[in-house]
Amino acid sequence: MIPRLFHGGALAANSTVALTQEQAHYLRSVLRREAGSEIRLFNAADGEFSARLAEVGKKGAAASLEALLRAPEAESDILLLVSPVKRAAMEMILQKGTELGAAAFLPVMTDRTNADRLRIDRLQAIALEAAEQCGRLSVPDVRAPSKLAETLLHWDRSRQLYYCDEAGDDPSKEWGGANGRAAPLIDVAREVGAGAAAILIGPEGGFTPEERRWLRTLPFVRAVTLGPRILRADTAAIVALALWQAAAGDFRRNGQ
Amino acid sequence: MIPRLFHGGALAANSTVALTQEQAHYLRSVLRREAGSEIRLFNAADGEFSARLAEVGKKGAAASLEALLRAPEAESDILLLVSPVKRAAMEMILQKGTELGAAAFLPVMTDRTNADRLRIDRLQAIALEAAEQCGRLSVPDVRAPSKLAETLLHWDRSRQLYYCDEAGDDPSKEWGGANGRAAPLIDVAREVGAGAAAILIGPEGGFTPEERRWLRTLPFVRAVTLGPRILRADTAAIVALALWQAAAGDFRRNGQ
Repeated sequence: MIPRLFHGGALAANSTVALTQEQAHYLRSVLRREAGSEIRLFNAADGEFSARLAEVGKKGAAASLEALLRAPEAESDILLLVSPVKRAAMEMILQKGTELGAAAFLPVMTDRTNADRLRIDRLQAIALEAAEQCGRLSVPDVRAPSKLAETLLHWDRSRQLYYCDEAGDDPSKEWGGANGRAAPLIDVAREVGAGAAAILIGPEGGFTPEERRWLRTLPFVRAVTLGPRILRADTAAIVALALWQAAAGDFRRNGQ
Repeated sequence: MIPRLFHGGALAANSTVALTQEQAHYLRSVLRREAGSEIRLFNAADGEFSARLAEVGKKGAAASLEALLRAPEAESDILLLVSPVKRAAMEMILQKGTELGAAAFLPVMTDRTNADRLRIDRLQAIALEAAEQCGRLSVPDVRAPSKLAETLLHWDRSRQLYYCDEAGDDPSKEWGGANGRAAPLIDVAREVGAGAAAILIGPEGGFTPEERRWLRTLPFVRAVTLGPRILRADTAAIVALALWQAAAGDFRRNGQ
C-alpha cells in the first residue's frame, strides 16, 4: 500500500516539499516508513504525484516529487447543506459525503435542529482522511455553522438547491409555494442537468410547516423525494448525493 | 410519537394479540405507556393496524387491534449479498439497507473476506428496529453466511445479479467474461428494469482477479460501476441499493 497524502502547498515534478507534523508522525510511527520509500501527494490545483521520502525524523519529513500521475480535473460542484445531527451520524455524513464527491459541507441550523456541539476541526479531519482514502484530488471544506435562513438569503441563484422533503407530497398539507409536487430526486436532477447544485437535508424531526412553505417559495429550490420510506438524516444525505452524482454528476466516469 | 411495532403473528381488525416480552418491556419501562395508549402493529402479510394496549405488565402485554391503516403491498425483490466487513460497517449496512428496502441480506464469504465474527441475531435485531422506524411493512431476513461460490451455484438465473466492480474497467486487466464493459449501475438497472434482482458487494480488499473473471462469466451477472472514487464497502452497499431503487425499484412511490 502506497500512502496517499494531501498536500496543501504547491506540487511540481522534481521539487521537494515539507510534510506536516501529523504526516511525518503517521509515516514514521504508524506506517514505519523510512527515507527512500514511495508515497503519493495530491491536491486539487496541481494533481497527484509520486514522491519519495527524502527524510523522515522526529522533527518532520520531506518528500521529493517525481512524476505527475494524474492531472488536475474538473470536479462536481455539489454542496451539502445539512442540519447538524448526533455526532456519529454527522461523522458518517462527512466520511460518506466525501467519498461521494461533495465539494463542501455547510452545517445549517433549522427550527428543529437539536444536535451535539459541532467540532469543525474533527469533521474536517474526517473529510481529509476520506479524501486520501477514496482517491479524490480535493478535500471538501467544512464550513462554520450558520442559520438556514441566513445562508439562503445570500444564495447564488444560479445554484439549484435540491430540498429533500421527507414528508413527500402529503395531500393533507397545503403548500404555499409555486414549485408544484415534489418529484424523485433522480428525475429532477436529470432534468436540471449538470452545473452548480446543492442538497439540503433537514434535522431528524424534519422541517417545520413554516420552513416547508418558505422553502417552496424560493425560486432556486426544487423539492425532491427519496422514496417511500422514512430515511434517517445520514442515510438521506448519502442517498441524495449518490443519486445526484448518478443523474447529473460524475458517476459516469469510471475508476482511475 | 405512536410506537410502531412489528408483529410476527396474524393481524386482523377487532382481534387481540399478545406482544413479545421485549415489546412489553419497551412499552412499559422505556416509553412508560399504560393500558389504553395507542400503538401500531404491522407485518408484510396483513398490513399495518392501529391498536390499543389492552394490558401491559411485568408478565407481558396485549393489544386490541382497531382499524387497518395500510393494506399489504408489493415490495421490491432486491437482495443484498455482502462480504462481511468490520462490525460497525456491517451494522451500518443492515440499518441503511433496511431503510432502503433490501428484501434480505446474504453474507457471502469471498477469497479476501476478513471480518469480525457475525452475530446474526444482533444484525437481525438491527434490521427489525430499522424496519419499525422507516415505515416498511416487512422485516428483511438476515441469512446465515455461506460461500459466494456456493450461493451462486444454486442461483435462480431469472434473478439479475449486479456485481459492483470497484476496479471499474481497468484496461490493463484481461477479463475472461463475455459481459463486456462494466457500466454505471443506474444505466444497467434502468435497461434491465424491475423484477427479481440482487446486489453483490465485495470485501474491503476487493475481489481477487480469479473471482472477477469467474463472476463475469456467469450469465445472470452484470458488472456495474459506482462512480470514479473508491467507496468503502458500507458506502458501496448503501449507494448501490439507492441507485437500484431509483432506477428499477420503488423510489418513484412517495412517502405514505
